[in-house]
Amino acid sequence: MTDTASFPVTPRNRVKRMHERARYDRASVWAVLDAAALAHVAWVLDGQPFCTPTIHWRDGDRLYWHGSAASRMLRTQAEGLPVCLTVSHLDGLVLARTAFHHSVNYRSAMCFGLARLVDDPEEKARALDGLVDRLSPGRAARLRPTTAQELKATSVLAMDVEEASVKVRAAGVADDLEDLSWPVWAGVVPLAAHVGAVEPCPHGTAPAPEPTDLAVWREGRRVDDVLRETQGLWRPSAEPAEGA
Amino acid sequence: MTDTASFPVTPRNRVKRMHERARYDRASVWAVLDAAALAHVAWVLDGQPFCTPTIHWRDGDRLYWHGSAASRMLRTQAEGLPVCLTVSHLDGLVLARTAFHHSVNYRSAMCFGLARLVDDPEEKARALDGLVDRLSPGRAARLRPTTAQELKATSVLAMDVEEASVKVRAAGVADDLEDLSWPVWAGVVPLAAHVGAVEPCPHGTAPAPEPTDLAVWREGRRVDDVLRETQGLWRPSAEPAEGA
Repeated sequence: MTDTASFPVTPRNRVKRMHERARYDRASVWAVLDAAALAHVAWVLDGQPFCTPTIHWRDGDRLYWHGSAASRMLRTQAEGLPVCLTVSHLDGLVLARTAFHHSVNYRSAMCFGLARLVDDPEEKARALDGLVDRLSPGRAARLRPTTAQELKATSVLAMDVEEASVKVRAAGVADDLEDLSWPVWAGVVPLAAHVGAVEPCPHGTAPAPEPTDLAVWREGRRVDDVLRETQGLWRPSAEPAEGA
Repeated sequence: MTDTASFPVTPRNRVKRMHERARYDRASVWAVLDAAALAHVAWVLDGQPFCTPTIHWRDGDRLYWHGSAASRMLRTQAEGLPVCLTVSHLDGLVLARTAFHHSVNYRSAMCFGLARLVDDPEEKARALDGLVDRLSPGRAARLRPTTAQELKATSVLAMDVEEASVKVRAAGVADDLEDLSWPVWAGVVPLAAHVGAVEPCPHGTAPAPEPTDLAVWREGRRVDDVLRETQGLWRPSAEPAEGA
């Protein structure tokens, strides 16, 4: 499956409002997912929806995230738990001359599929290395190795994306012609997450090695730029995960 | 209801993992909500969960957000649609000497309640003024007034928060003592959203007035600081909304 291949469009993932802003191809979905570390997962327990924030990472068509309140429930769901994992970037506020045309610039991706618990220790260990390496490529191999007990204490969830959609707005003020003379300032306020100055742990007793794994996390860089870069360093191929 | 009053703690909002990071008082919940413009709402249709990103705003115990795919469904739900609205801030990456102690610094709030469609035109107009004024206090009154047709074309949802919880991690690396000598760099990479340089709309035909409503959105400021300030300017009282 190449990255230009589209996900199927069904009643579940078809964008209803502002459908001219929608995309369904993998490259567009991955571009939104890979540029963020934070995702929100919607899932249901006895009719009650929960929206759980988590750190996600992507290996091909497969998404991983960390154990959550859902992990106990998953043990009883052999066929997987229906979830919707969403990643959003708020890129700016659009202040128009009319309340109606106020808007925001954003990129968001919704991914649908069945979540399952990663129980196999080998797959779990490989997945967790991915969590570290996706944020700091090559770092996992330099860490104190994970113990069997630590592995057991960690829940990892996986989902093969079945359907997905992307919505993007990246434009200026869209007031109607007849409103352009209304005497109020109008424009876009851009917003973006940036990297701050790293705070070394003060408790180390060994000489600190060169932080080569932090070369990409330079102060002032846009977080979405860094994360796209680390994803590319970790998974340089555009090919999907084994078995995906 | 004062801001120090706690929400009830039930099986629905009780924090299961890392419960020492949990809070249930209004002041803590509002601090997380008010510092963000972006929320994610989980809701269910025929057993399928959806996670919809949206812009939220808060008036006392009442949360508002914009129409979404859920709005058609809500017309048939006189008693309201169960939702979970979550706001999260990713404040930093915690790079430890062990994969197990890798973490992130974050603030997140989950709010539970029944969403309803705001149908009354007067309540809807007041709510939408809130959306504008919450981002740029005093701006709504300066805009070209909203027409009845525009109001009709806009869906607004409201939810009185029944239960909520907050989780916060704001700390350094938490490796075990025996791992502190492992020879790998460890520390925190802080992340934060900042305001960029405003981009005035180039299509205005009237002389642009002083952008007094943008005084708070100065380039370089932290977005969460600005939003806490605008919320305080819009709703200086700690008292909840009328009827909440």
